[in-house]
Amino acid sequence: MKIDPQVESKFSRLAENVQMWNTHHDNTWDASISENLTIIEARPDFLVFEFEVAENHTNGIGNLHGGCVATLIDLCSSLAILVSDEKHVQWRTPGISTELAVSYIAGAPEGTKLRIENELLRSGKTLANLYTKIFNESGKLCYSGTHTKFCMDSRL
Amino acid sequence: MKIDPQVESKFSRLAENVQMWNTHHDNTWDASISENLTIIEARPDFLVFEFEVAENHTNGIGNLHGGCVATLIDLCSSLAILVSDEKHVQWRTPGISTELAVSYIAGAPEGTKLRIENELLRSGKTLANLYTKIFNESGKLCYSGTHTKFCMDSRL
Amino acid sequence: MKIDPQVESKFSRLAENVQMWNTHHDNTWDASISENLTIIEARPDFLVFEFEVAENHTNGIGNLHGGCVATLIDLCSSLAILVSDEKHVQWRTPGISTELAVSYIAGAPEGTKLRIENELLRSGKTLANLYTKIFNESGKLCYSGTHTKFCMDSRL
Amino acid sequence: MKIDPQVESKFSRLAENVQMWNTHHDNTWDASISENLTIIEARPDFLVFEFEVAENHTNGIGNLHGGCVATLIDLCSSLAILVSDEKHVQWRTPGISTELAVSYIAGAPEGTKLRIENELLRSGKTLANLYTKIFNESGKLCYSGTHTKFCMDSRL
Repeated sequence: MKIDPQVESKFSRLAENVQMWNTHHDNTWDASISENLTIIEARPDFLVFEFEVAENHTNGIGNLHGGCVATLIDLCSSLAILVSDEKHVQWRTPGISTELAVSYIAGAPEGTKLRIENELLRSGKTLANLYTKIFNESGKLCYSGTHTKFCMDSRL
Repeated sequence: MKIDPQVESKFSRLAENVQMWNTHHDNTWDASISENLTIIEARPDFLVFEFEVAENHTNGIGNLHGGCVATLIDLCSSLAILVSDEKHVQWRTPGISTELAVSYIAGAPEGTKLRIENELLRSGKTLANLYTKIFNESGKLCYSGTHTKFCMDSRL
Repeated sequence: MKIDPQVESKFSRLAENVQMWNTHHDNTWDASISENLTIIEARPDFLVFEFEVAENHTNGIGNLHGGCVATLIDLCSSLAILVSDEKHVQWRTPGISTELAVSYIAGAPEGTKLRIENELLRSGKTLANLYTKIFNESGKLCYSGTHTKFCMDSRL
Repeated sequence: MKIDPQVESKFSRLAENVQMWNTHHDNTWDASISENLTIIEARPDFLVFEFEVAENHTNGIGNLHGGCVATLIDLCSSLAILVSDEKHVQWRTPGISTELAVSYIAGAPEGTKLRIENELLRSGKTLANLYTKIFNESGKLCYSGTHTKFCMDSRL
């Protein structure tokens, strides 16, 4: 996973978690999306990634696989917890998932460059809520998702 | 993907789709779950898989990755459309996803043998609804999911 | 809300909560479904209601309103927390909702007698997961739903 | 249901449906929210309501009932289909629900004036996808929801 240097210098919790992620995910399920994923923008409660669809992310009809969409939303929205606004509880780590829901709106074939926008709706003491929209190069919405996470900071 | 010979002989639409899947998914997103997946039981509107969690299905803390759970539910529940009861419209292919939602209830570490039960709630002319429960060897429910699919038979 | 006497005598936490509910919900949102709702069966982790659709539960085209379906699932599945099996943490009260999702499968016109089956999938220290299926008199599945609740017992 | 005169004059499909709604919903499930609901802003793909929580919208602990939140999202987001941008298929009526999911983030007690923002993500030939955010007077997000609808125009 790559990260824009300006984002890296401004958001330290995010930078640390990305660095840790890059060190420890050689053979995990999400390793195959890592090299195609770049953090390109961040502001409080909002984090944007770019991702290019490769052949090994597709389904039998040549579009981004529904399970890969879910994996992208899981990973990308989780990291948005680490750019939270001051009004929220500040989690040190992205916690674990309790619910993930995806709406499939339009397909994205191999080679598509996707823009993945993640919004942190709330992070409280126990739960965080996130919302993700994934657009293609023409600005067409292809997928959206909601994600709920459970804080694990106290158990670390 | 393997299939129990008795299931294969009794459910022809399922058998054809599994055979086609095995031929055409060498480099797709779900290829990495295929070799660990076996169809072990089927009856009208109900299809059961067994799946063993390997290292490349896990997340950074050693449990089955949330995105892999979503991919399993996507793939396994889709095939349950092909063992539909006579009261439903009979789809020839599993269509495309419109919505997928997962609840994460308990973790499943590497080596866990999961039982993936998929129920076809309805298949109509346009939409199908599916519900999945995933248990570990002790019978504990680890994950559940709902999946909605859109029929593509008329476009084939 | 009515309750079968046998269920009432066997499930004391449920009986107490139903009694409290009947005392305190004269003018709440769910009051208008109360008189048409009866608890007819219960076993550990499973609770069944009967409900007859009246005119004031319908939408503009004469079927049970989508918001009324959501309200029924909210209320009925919450009470299933109170018939939990020994393997779960025993909540004294049904807590508050964090997520509710409904699938609309078939319509139910005024006069339909619905069977509302609620399954408690898990109740832990913090969260509970429930699943609901609503059938008409012919046994056709009309609606299904998932519900996640947050325990408030420690704050009472 | 009230509608801002400027919105009414600019969005004719919306105005007609609101007028029809006001004529035909005396005794439906959503009648009890109608008098407290006003359309205050509209632009292509985006529709905003104001709603004041009254006692008969609350639950046993004095907050807006989860089922009333679902009913509000159902009704308000449906009408956003009628202010669609030119890039979408133009539905004449809001169709029927196939899926509705709500996240409960913060409570809203009686007297709260809510702002209900509804975004039309897509309306195609068969399905429409909507996303709703509900804020209190302080701009705090209290609830969010996703809604999928099925077009019925061809059957009218």
